[in-house]
Amino acid sequence: MTAPLRVGLAGLGTVGAGVVKLLDANAGLIERRANRSIVVSAVAARDRSRERGVDLARFAWVDDATELAGRDDVDAVVELIGGSDGPALVLARATLGAGKAFVTANKAMLAHHGLDLAQLAENHGAPLKYEAAVAGGIPVIKGLREGAAANRVERVYGILNGTCNYILSRMEAEKLSFAAVLADAQRLGFAEADPSFDIDGVDAAHKLSILAAIAFGARIDFAHVAVEGIRHVAAVDIDHAATLGFRIKLVGLASEVGGELFQRVHPCLVPLAHPLAHVDGSLNAVVAEGDFVGRLFFSGRGAGEGPTASAVVADLIDVARGKVGPAFAMPTARLAALAPADTAAHVGRFYLRLMVADRPGVLAELTAALRDAEVSIESLIQRGPPAAGSGSDQNAGEVHVVMVTHAVRQSAIAAALDRMATSHSVTAAPMMMHILDF
Amino acid sequence: MTAPLRVGLAGLGTVGAGVVKLLDANAGLIERRANRSIVVSAVAARDRSRERGVDLARFAWVDDATELAGRDDVDAVVELIGGSDGPALVLARATLGAGKAFVTANKAMLAHHGLDLAQLAENHGAPLKYEAAVAGGIPVIKGLREGAAANRVERVYGILNGTCNYILSRMEAEKLSFAAVLADAQRLGFAEADPSFDIDGVDAAHKLSILAAIAFGARIDFAHVAVEGIRHVAAVDIDHAATLGFRIKLVGLASEVGGELFQRVHPCLVPLAHPLAHVDGSLNAVVAEGDFVGRLFFSGRGAGEGPTASAVVADLIDVARGKVGPAFAMPTARLAALAPADTAAHVGRFYLRLMVADRPGVLAELTAALRDAEVSIESLIQRGPPAAGSGSDQNAGEVHVVMVTHAVRQSAIAAALDRMATSHSVTAAPMMMHILDF
Repeated sequence: MTAPLRVGLAGLGTVGAGVVKLLDANAGLIERRANRSIVVSAVAARDRSRERGVDLARFAWVDDATELAGRDDVDAVVELIGGSDGPALVLARATLGAGKAFVTANKAMLAHHGLDLAQLAENHGAPLKYEAAVAGGIPVIKGLREGAAANRVERVYGILNGTCNYILSRMEAEKLSFAAVLADAQRLGFAEADPSFDIDGVDAAHKLSILAAIAFGARIDFAHVAVEGIRHVAAVDIDHAATLGFRIKLVGLASEVGGELFQRVHPCLVPLAHPLAHVDGSLNAVVAEGDFVGRLFFSGRGAGEGPTASAVVADLIDVARGKVGPAFAMPTARLAALAPADTAAHVGRFYLRLMVADRPGVLAELTAALRDAEVSIESLIQRGPPAAGSGSDQNAGEVHVVMVTHAVRQSAIAAALDRMATSHSVTAAPMMMHILDF
Repeated sequence: MTAPLRVGLAGLGTVGAGVVKLLDANAGLIERRANRSIVVSAVAARDRSRERGVDLARFAWVDDATELAGRDDVDAVVELIGGSDGPALVLARATLGAGKAFVTANKAMLAHHGLDLAQLAENHGAPLKYEAAVAGGIPVIKGLREGAAANRVERVYGILNGTCNYILSRMEAEKLSFAAVLADAQRLGFAEADPSFDIDGVDAAHKLSILAAIAFGARIDFAHVAVEGIRHVAAVDIDHAATLGFRIKLVGLASEVGGELFQRVHPCLVPLAHPLAHVDGSLNAVVAEGDFVGRLFFSGRGAGEGPTASAVVADLIDVARGKVGPAFAMPTARLAALAPADTAAHVGRFYLRLMVADRPGVLAELTAALRDAEVSIESLIQRGPPAAGSGSDQNAGEVHVVMVTHAVRQSAIAAALDRMATSHSVTAAPMMMHILDF
């Protein structure tokens, strides 16, 4: 048997404490599986005194996380500090520069600096591992990088942010507004005090850019992910979508089209027959479609102490087993520099919801605007003003017109909406969402 | 870059031809991902002349597959001959004995000889890889062995046989009998001429024994899988199950209970809220529940040319990358020899369907038998004789009594059924199925 793998742990929040708990709880099992033990030797965190539910007195304690990289008793550093730059990035560079393994859950840092860090890792023969950065405990990085490695991946997509999925699921189940569920989620600790990274789709975009790099053998390109969050999804949209046979999910989607990289995060109508429609609450799920394997579907818990620790320690076990390779599945020099695709050129079906005044001729006005933009309608629901006291969130005197278009270029929809925006009949900004059609 | 990985391919049926097609179609991509090319150098198959849709003239051709192991131009052998013994096993032993990598889709051989082959692989420092043996294209072997490696796995279960799932799905969708769907599946080539390995659960049991060995770090123990197939599932059971909120699936389930290994393949009522309930047609799915990660769910195509070739080539890419380890995730000496659990001691809810004569006192007789065996009833449906000409497959004068029990020991159910078997009111053998309750 080989000597233990000695870990320096930077960041002792929920996940950091979870890693210590896991290494304690399953020490024997891990030693059998890795054929050597994995032990924490040193830790770094801002606050030494906070109670974390685990015994930390047995570890050496450093104030500056960067010191972990240089310690003789550290073979691998686990970074759980977070943030795309700052101490996490300094630590990553120091660790990889010292030729040591670097394991991280930091999607933001990878989205912004992944290629640089992969090159540094390569130059120093150091493993860079990040299973925990995408979809928490689900081994989807491994699944794409190794499990689907024989395939030309046609697209990769999924539900990548548990907070958004939790909010959308509760809005649907309890018929509540976005604001009400968000406030409650914050109270319960399921959403951050500043929730914008989650609800505006940035977190999902970080993760999507990582998945896309692996799936398509491309240089990571976070800057060109088209991002749209869930703030403007209304309870009534969820209701209309259900009537039409869909559920609304925040979907991150990437594909390679004609040598261009298409990346988009957006709230999206998912047909009930699609497995993503049934991923509820804070679960995550990823779908990869390969030319030989067909559709692979992975789901599980995408965040939290246990699942994230599970992914971090899986990476450590790979490091301990010596099973490491290039961070993005192939040497950085072989990663393609794909041009970004124009997401507005996307062709697909769309959901439109318009709130209009209840007077004659309005529907004719709307349909004419669509006709002029060459947008063809597949189905249309008009819901008249609510009965007094019905509890509807629709205003009296207001009609909802909900449409599903035939497949059309996104720019045509935009043109139609521009026309409608000038109409005096339209009482609120129209709502437009993509429909997932595969 | 390293020299190409040279492959000897034994067996040129659908999957073998698929491997050649895949290596051709994605050669450039695979070379980037593996950082070396993967090329077939020699093939072995019984019939040289059969048209397989790929150019085989460029490969050396051997008559005896065993020769592949000894060839200087072969670094890795892919075995797609099938069968637990015979030529496949001879080839496995010769290849591993020569210290070469052995990649196989042969679940039967692994179920019967997996431990021996893993020891042989270990002794000769040769990789033994078998992602394609379980759940086709879904990277579930890798997911369990590496992705979930940090966890104590509580149970692993899933839909492991696509033929059974196809038959059950069509029975439900088209309200057809088992025999009718089987005959049609055979006509369409979805079921073998001799379908017993599939429909009697043997194939699923082979796969389950492999998953269990990895999940629990145990010596493979196919002999103690309790196996029950789907021959006796009637269309009416699917119908009753739907009324009660379940779908019937053939589920393979393994868990470690008190140091004992519980392994069972059985048709099972799956609640609609469980993701396995929505795995339709010939798809496969595997669930692993770990102490830190929670529930992981994988699904995809479990058989066929493309998916199986995808898994075989993923193994070859791992071999090419040098990423190999013990066949069952840990050295064979560290695998536990778990005693088999008594599956009849299982406690859970059960579905019972009894066909009884339509006369007074019958229900009292049945419920008394259950009471005497201390089986408590959660819900009961009695469906009277069908109306004339209703098209029901129920006989006139016959009543169906369908029950869901509270959680009870399986042996108690067996005792109750024994009592009922002596009743003159019971007109056909009772049907008993497990309910999946987690």
